[in-house]
Amino acid sequence: MKVAIVGFGKIARDQHVPAIANSGAFELAATASRHAHAEGLPAYPDIEALLAAEPDIAAIALCQPPQVRHAAARAAIAAGRHVFLEKPPGATLSEVVDLARAADDAGVTLFASWHSRFAAGVESARDWLAGRTIRSIRIDWKEDVRHWHPGQQWIWEPGGLGVFDPGINALSILTRLLRGPVRLEAATLEFPANRDAPIAATLAMRTTEGAPIAADFDWRQTGPQTWDIVVETDAGMLRLAEGGNRLFVDGVERPLPAEGEYPALYARFARLVADGRSDVDVAPLRLVADAFLAGRRTATAAFED
Amino acid sequence: MKVAIVGFGKIARDQHVPAIANSGAFELAATASRHAHAEGLPAYPDIEALLAAEPDIAAIALCQPPQVRHAAARAAIAAGRHVFLEKPPGATLSEVVDLARAADDAGVTLFASWHSRFAAGVESARDWLAGRTIRSIRIDWKEDVRHWHPGQQWIWEPGGLGVFDPGINALSILTRLLRGPVRLEAATLEFPANRDAPIAATLAMRTTEGAPIAADFDWRQTGPQTWDIVVETDAGMLRLAEGGNRLFVDGVERPLPAEGEYPALYARFARLVADGRSDVDVAPLRLVADAFLAGRRTATAAFED
Repeated sequence: MKVAIVGFGKIARDQHVPAIANSGAFELAATASRHAHAEGLPAYPDIEALLAAEPDIAAIALCQPPQVRHAAARAAIAAGRHVFLEKPPGATLSEVVDLARAADDAGVTLFASWHSRFAAGVESARDWLAGRTIRSIRIDWKEDVRHWHPGQQWIWEPGGLGVFDPGINALSILTRLLRGPVRLEAATLEFPANRDAPIAATLAMRTTEGAPIAADFDWRQTGPQTWDIVVETDAGMLRLAEGGNRLFVDGVERPLPAEGEYPALYARFARLVADGRSDVDVAPLRLVADAFLAGRRTATAAFED
Repeated sequence: MKVAIVGFGKIARDQHVPAIANSGAFELAATASRHAHAEGLPAYPDIEALLAAEPDIAAIALCQPPQVRHAAARAAIAAGRHVFLEKPPGATLSEVVDLARAADDAGVTLFASWHSRFAAGVESARDWLAGRTIRSIRIDWKEDVRHWHPGQQWIWEPGGLGVFDPGINALSILTRLLRGPVRLEAATLEFPANRDAPIAATLAMRTTEGAPIAADFDWRQTGPQTWDIVVETDAGMLRLAEGGNRLFVDGVERPLPAEGEYPALYARFARLVADGRSDVDVAPLRLVADAFLAGRRTATAAFED
């Protein structure tokens, strides 16, 4: 199946292009992007031009910033194409609900992807937790925004999520590990004085059974980077490290399958298309919205790139 | 069926008590509240004491501030009672999802009520709009917080919603009038310098067909109060005034049924219990969460009661 990428930025070049090339199910056939294109392939300035010129491209991967994703997704759905949404699936929950309804009405597949859910250790961790009683969960997601998002302005705009842009990856793993709903009880959000999005946040959540979940997101971490989830249970301690890619049980590392996150995402997308189904789970974005809705805001030092 | 009210404040005394008294289906049997009680009825300091002492009370109406509602609702559901939630149904979306799951597992009815949906003109307006093409919608919801919420501190706390506490009533009507999802595109939120909740907000939304919806919420309106929704269509203009209680089509007022909002809510609750169903629509709260998530914040003058 031919697929086009819209928004040909860093994540598209680093992850989507190689995953598509090795997928067996998809062939990259074109791009639409304002500033970049894939060597040797048709390149369009925007999705409307792409959709009009390429009726045989059955699937579209949307990799632009979330603030402009809804309009592109509605255009692709209206043109009868299957849609792969990078994370987060939108700037708001209501626009994702709108997309899900539109895709359903049009009979196309909508896949709201969460790449961290496909990190190597996540399914093994979920299986290990089944049948154990969780006592507490601790999430530390701390990285250097200057290294990972150099000069990107959209992440600081309203709808850009700030530190929740990486933090939502942790929430996507958390909501996959647990079989019941996760609820937010309280949050604090630190906003740089000159920015419209938070640079740090703490979340106090609970499993549906009542176990506490504490998350600490920080974009000011220099030196070693931390993407860890630690789960204390009645029968041992589980640690997912490196964004879900390494798994430790009571300190002993477990061997994991080698498939990468994006190859697994495209395999999932291919199955959804084949089955005529969609997969639109907003639970991670809902927790972020809840943190903005009910969290307490504090001001912190101005941030300059 | 015996019902107890938890959180015996202004809304409970003004609306719930008379609606229950005239319902035919319910009998007020007790209250649980820190500072008030209903004359001549058993009064408990909290819901745990009530649930333990009153096994025959089958339904609980929760009228406390939203920040403390989840724990009470889970306790009532765990005790096998049907639950009526005042609006908003919670301080966060995720806690409402958790309640819906818990009620479903326990086999009890959960009713997330939106009283303004039962205002006299709403169903007539919805019927009139069916088959017409909406061109635009304008919402003005402007009232004097000092008059309507004198000295209430919880509305200014995180999770208390600020001006969205009345504004969510407009959103509950809007999402009932339209048959497709409403999505938020942009918002501005004005926060008093000394408060953790907004005193004014503007929302730019769209119907799923693309028609613009502009909402203006303001808590600083003295003099005449405004709770209006105006819908321009291809075949006439509809205006819902006074919070949905008066209906005008092309300037001519339409006669409306006389049933009040809370009597209609309790009639709906009785039907849900009889049918063994729940009604938990989070669409209004989702739009509010989206406004906090993706909206731009500005600071405004400090507010003192």
